[in-house]
Amino acid sequence: MDPIGGMKIWRVNLSRQSLDIEDVPETWQYLGGRSLLARVLLDEVPPTCEPLGPLNKLVFAPGLLVGHMLSSCDRISVGAKSPLTGGIKESNAGGSTGLHMTNMGMRALILEGQPTQPEWWVVHLSLQGARFDPADDLAGLGVYETARVLLERYGKKVAIALIGPGGEMRLASAGIQNLDKDRVPARINARGGMGAVLGSKGVKAIIFDDASGKKPPITHPDAFKQAQKAYNQALMGHPQIAIYRDYGTAGNARMCDGFGGLPTRNFSSGHFEQVEQISGEYMREILLARGGESEPTHACMLGCTIRCSNIFGGEDGKAIVSPLEYETIGLMGSNLEIASLDTIARMNWQVNDLGLDSIEVGAALGVAAEAGLFAFGDGERALELLDEIRRGTPLGRLLGSGAGMTGKVLGVTRVPVVKNQAMSAYEPRAIKGTGVTYATSPQGADHTAGLTIRAKVDHLDPIGQASLSRTVQINVAGYDSLGACTFAGFGFAAAPESIRDLLNARYDWQVGTDILQVLGREALRLEREFNRQAGFTAADDRLPEFMIHEPLPPHDAVFDVPDEDLDEVFNWL
Amino acid sequence: MDPIGGMKIWRVNLSRQSLDIEDVPETWQYLGGRSLLARVLLDEVPPTCEPLGPLNKLVFAPGLLVGHMLSSCDRISVGAKSPLTGGIKESNAGGSTGLHMTNMGMRALILEGQPTQPEWWVVHLSLQGARFDPADDLAGLGVYETARVLLERYGKKVAIALIGPGGEMRLASAGIQNLDKDRVPARINARGGMGAVLGSKGVKAIIFDDASGKKPPITHPDAFKQAQKAYNQALMGHPQIAIYRDYGTAGNARMCDGFGGLPTRNFSSGHFEQVEQISGEYMREILLARGGESEPTHACMLGCTIRCSNIFGGEDGKAIVSPLEYETIGLMGSNLEIASLDTIARMNWQVNDLGLDSIEVGAALGVAAEAGLFAFGDGERALELLDEIRRGTPLGRLLGSGAGMTGKVLGVTRVPVVKNQAMSAYEPRAIKGTGVTYATSPQGADHTAGLTIRAKVDHLDPIGQASLSRTVQINVAGYDSLGACTFAGFGFAAAPESIRDLLNARYDWQVGTDILQVLGREALRLEREFNRQAGFTAADDRLPEFMIHEPLPPHDAVFDVPDEDLDEVFNWL
Repeated sequence: MDPIGGMKIWRVNLSRQSLDIEDVPETWQYLGGRSLLARVLLDEVPPTCEPLGPLNKLVFAPGLLVGHMLSSCDRISVGAKSPLTGGIKESNAGGSTGLHMTNMGMRALILEGQPTQPEWWVVHLSLQGARFDPADDLAGLGVYETARVLLERYGKKVAIALIGPGGEMRLASAGIQNLDKDRVPARINARGGMGAVLGSKGVKAIIFDDASGKKPPITHPDAFKQAQKAYNQALMGHPQIAIYRDYGTAGNARMCDGFGGLPTRNFSSGHFEQVEQISGEYMREILLARGGESEPTHACMLGCTIRCSNIFGGEDGKAIVSPLEYETIGLMGSNLEIASLDTIARMNWQVNDLGLDSIEVGAALGVAAEAGLFAFGDGERALELLDEIRRGTPLGRLLGSGAGMTGKVLGVTRVPVVKNQAMSAYEPRAIKGTGVTYATSPQGADHTAGLTIRAKVDHLDPIGQASLSRTVQINVAGYDSLGACTFAGFGFAAAPESIRDLLNARYDWQVGTDILQVLGREALRLEREFNRQAGFTAADDRLPEFMIHEPLPPHDAVFDVPDEDLDEVFNWL
Repeated sequence: MDPIGGMKIWRVNLSRQSLDIEDVPETWQYLGGRSLLARVLLDEVPPTCEPLGPLNKLVFAPGLLVGHMLSSCDRISVGAKSPLTGGIKESNAGGSTGLHMTNMGMRALILEGQPTQPEWWVVHLSLQGARFDPADDLAGLGVYETARVLLERYGKKVAIALIGPGGEMRLASAGIQNLDKDRVPARINARGGMGAVLGSKGVKAIIFDDASGKKPPITHPDAFKQAQKAYNQALMGHPQIAIYRDYGTAGNARMCDGFGGLPTRNFSSGHFEQVEQISGEYMREILLARGGESEPTHACMLGCTIRCSNIFGGEDGKAIVSPLEYETIGLMGSNLEIASLDTIARMNWQVNDLGLDSIEVGAALGVAAEAGLFAFGDGERALELLDEIRRGTPLGRLLGSGAGMTGKVLGVTRVPVVKNQAMSAYEPRAIKGTGVTYATSPQGADHTAGLTIRAKVDHLDPIGQASLSRTVQINVAGYDSLGACTFAGFGFAAAPESIRDLLNARYDWQVGTDILQVLGREALRLEREFNRQAGFTAADDRLPEFMIHEPLPPHDAVFDVPDEDLDEVFNWL
């Protein structure tokens, strides 16, 4: 029996420019994606190390089900000690990187060491091994232009993970971008500064060339096919899917505003007067009217049947950005009192091209507005501030360092961060289960760690939210170990035995139906342990003070989930 | 028996502009200065609170022996939760504030609450009570001009604690300035952002008017006089005193360079080629030659017989700054490769006038130099950068937020901080006992928490340094509870029974000769407990990574005191 299905660990050392291909150690088997990289980081990275120094490692790990054209299951997890939070970080994205890695037989790619001189490299990985190509000519180039040059240089069939100027400047909000199925570098491992870590290793881009690679082997193909069918049926039969296909995540704008939980003017209101103009419904309407390159419905990964992505075109029909997501709309729209989707889309393109996390930068701009650096609603000034980041001015670097740092330097105390990471577009005072997730996730404030908006509960009621968040956090950490997108969860939740059957068929395992929770709990356990060794305590599992005391309109809600509940979220540890 | 000698707690609330005068609670008795304010903060401030928010409190506490013209024993401790470290902070200073407070019968002054609107106030305290005078006209004024106006407004006999533009901007390196005996506002509670906390409460200055006040009562005057005599004799007989009188703390420059421990070019060398030009010996020579307002020897407090302070005059004999201390010379001189005492003195005046900590700002400038924002050695550019702080530009605010923040935003990993506070002018790789203090002090990196340079040990040898640091940290925390300057320690160490006798005579106590250690241990215990509740762990008791791995010239020393030794410093807790 080969419990890891023929996969290997690829280890690239940037200090000596070497590649080692290693067997998967026994204790790393059965793990994938988020749970695997937590194990790798805990085993190999000193939790107190300098995140941008030579002791940190950056790990790419596709989920356990990546590589089989399962709808919404090709995600790539990237992790390291975070320069933003100082704790462990996993950030996953769609696109083609995970698929190419599994085609090349990589269970994980570990990047370690760093050059002693400032210099830029492209790391080219193929079944022939590793090549380190000088890339000083790419320094300073935006993500889109860099991707264009690289596709020209390395051919259109490769997958690419790359950074923009933000990662080169090692800004704590810098992400890593991956090509989507149309070779647009817009699938972002956005959160926690993974791009800064790649930048600290002198790597502008990694090329994954899967030529001569092959789909990962499936031990029991018939059983796999049957489980896949069950999963697909459950997924397509889910009532939410049609909504996400029509409106993408932007459909959440109206819903969250309805909860009184749409962050507005630096988290000072949960209702935005102009919500209609930034709603998914309105976006679909104008994209259909504009036509041209606009696509209200678009897939980011091959084989995805949900197609929650979109291409946002301007009035001339030319694409401005793809995708325009709800979280960007919330943080760069209502949170800045900017009610124009066109302006938000232009801002989104800018942060994408800079290679930054739109949530973190949007939150930083909200804090900057509170400090008087620009007026809420002034979209042109917001675009100017993004240009400060591009020029690497002190103000630009400050904003690119995230909301927490911006607040500290500008003397603002209303700063929506936990563990120094900005909250997403779900106000925790109005959506308290997600508030529990923000507070307690080892990842810092992060809606993808456990969003509770779909639960049929009173989101304003503090009772039971910790338990709800626990369940969702465990499940999500499980999905992040499979490589499954959060929407794949609609299908898996309706057909939970399909996860068991897919894994057993793929790897010849004999796991039970609780495998999702087993993986999720293990990921969280390892992450908590890393953070504990890094110095995190219960004091870090709290929301900012103003959210405990300042009532949020329209419901005048405060975050009143008791600390004791927060401290019980990980009660199985 | 009245164990607190007739003293009271004064409580000023800035939310409602009120004053309450309260008895000293039983558990606060027997404590003073640093130990008392640790007790107050632990009892009254939530350790996880926002440092610049309404829940933080700023406490002024004179030491137990303040008010009796004991040489070097009139220091005022100021404390709060620190916006720089996120932990507890005590910062003490000379000058006349402590003396006036004791004359007014204040064991401690607690400032709490904050105005809901941005506005500036002068708090006037006298035996008639509190008055809150609008002070928006003083906003933006430098410390020296503010002090001049306030002395005109409130008369020449008052003591004043005030902030400059740095505190108004709530910069994390902002201190609180006190008048010296010549009414120069140069005695600074410098470290950890206490000025930012005062600024967050809308207070530009506090006036202590001790008119009709009287010296605090002494229960046994004869015994007190006798103990005072023993202390004075021991102090004046100490061989170090003459050195500090002649050269001030600047005498340390040659000595630390001799140890290979003079921070040079952002802590990349322990030897500065031009050390002679910034030495105390050279300073004395030029000050004597220049004459005019220059004074190589000067006292900061009434009754001080050591007179380690100085007035640094320019070539025209006019005073540039007073005092010019070794730590400023190290951080703004060798650390920036600036070998001109005149330039360093001008920089020192600027940071004083801005109301900032010269250590923190000097370290931030070193980090900025490493980031390429200015060239080492370029004093004019350094002065320009200080002007950025005055203008409140994003770059200026960043530098004023300290070395740690500057490093994070500019992507520099060689940053000499512990608990986000900058190290002083004693390189921990060459002076390892002080390195232990930097690592483990609840205050963050701070030489005044336990400087080990006077110990007769091999400072490069890691063995025994933790035990040495422990002893010194306990003693210093004791002196900080008495209001005794570190140099007073020369006298008390030679006549330890004089501490017991002075306290028993003053308060009618029956304490033993171990009272210094009892107070010191209690202060440290309370501070550690506050920090524990604030979320600090052993992971915070470490030096920055580069100091563990990067050999420091000229001795190629690394910091190799084992972590286990660091974790044993507080082994009695």
